[in-house]
Amino acid sequence: MSEAGDGYTLSATTELPFADALARAREELASEGFGVLCEIDVQATLEQKLGVDREPYVILGACNPPLAHQALDAEPELGALLPCNVIVYERDNKTHLAAINAERMLSIVGNPALSEIAADVRRRLALVVERVASASAGGTGKA
Amino acid sequence: MSEAGDGYTLSATTELPFADALARAREELASEGFGVLCEIDVQATLEQKLGVDREPYVILGACNPPLAHQALDAEPELGALLPCNVIVYERDNKTHLAAINAERMLSIVGNPALSEIAADVRRRLALVVERVASASAGGTGKA
Repeated sequence: MSEAGDGYTLSATTELPFADALARAREELASEGFGVLCEIDVQATLEQKLGVDREPYVILGACNPPLAHQALDAEPELGALLPCNVIVYERDNKTHLAAINAERMLSIVGNPALSEIAADVRRRLALVVERVASASAGGTGKA
Repeated sequence: MSEAGDGYTLSATTELPFADALARAREELASEGFGVLCEIDVQATLEQKLGVDREPYVILGACNPPLAHQALDAEPELGALLPCNVIVYERDNKTHLAAINAERMLSIVGNPALSEIAADVRRRLALVVERVASASAGGTGKA
């Protein structure tokens, strides 16, 4: 997994086909306490709106309710940056996935009360990305 | 409207009641070329998941398809930060709204190819916030 430095995403590739990676990402998000509050099929949306042909690309908008509740109490306008996204996409016949780096994203808010929550979200989303990345096609998820 | 310095939101209050402000935000987004790809009722979600009682708070996930298409070509993982949110919420009996400051948000990506798109999105969302903020309850929208 690539999270060198302070990049805005925690990203990886996976052996899984696109649809399997997407299903697995949902499962791993659930196991870390994240519900998927919205799901955007970027390929379908841009095909419909612009008639363009793009590769498969889905945005999962993930929310861990206790952490979101706590964060919104500390920072009322934080909804402008929520939910936390995990993206799954195909590019050059490879399946990629990435989660937002919550610490980097929340750094623009400049509210120290969010530091612990951001670190917690980052850690959980890093686990999600790692687990999907190490899942083998048809396997048990242990690389 | 408050967009002093380099804050992560462009925010304002409005005389409109919450539901009217939300409807008006949707209209103004449409007039600037943004579809609402997802809508999260934060109050309902946290009530359902945690049983907590919060004030009305809705996140509109807005997408301008031509700009999104262009931005994703320049930066494949940008979906981790999309769509651009406009939030409408009640606090202490006042209706507030805020849009993400796209320039500030995209600054964490560090890709100069996004600069013009970010400035364009910021400008459009600032207009949306201004227009909702200046709409008078029952009026024509001209303050």
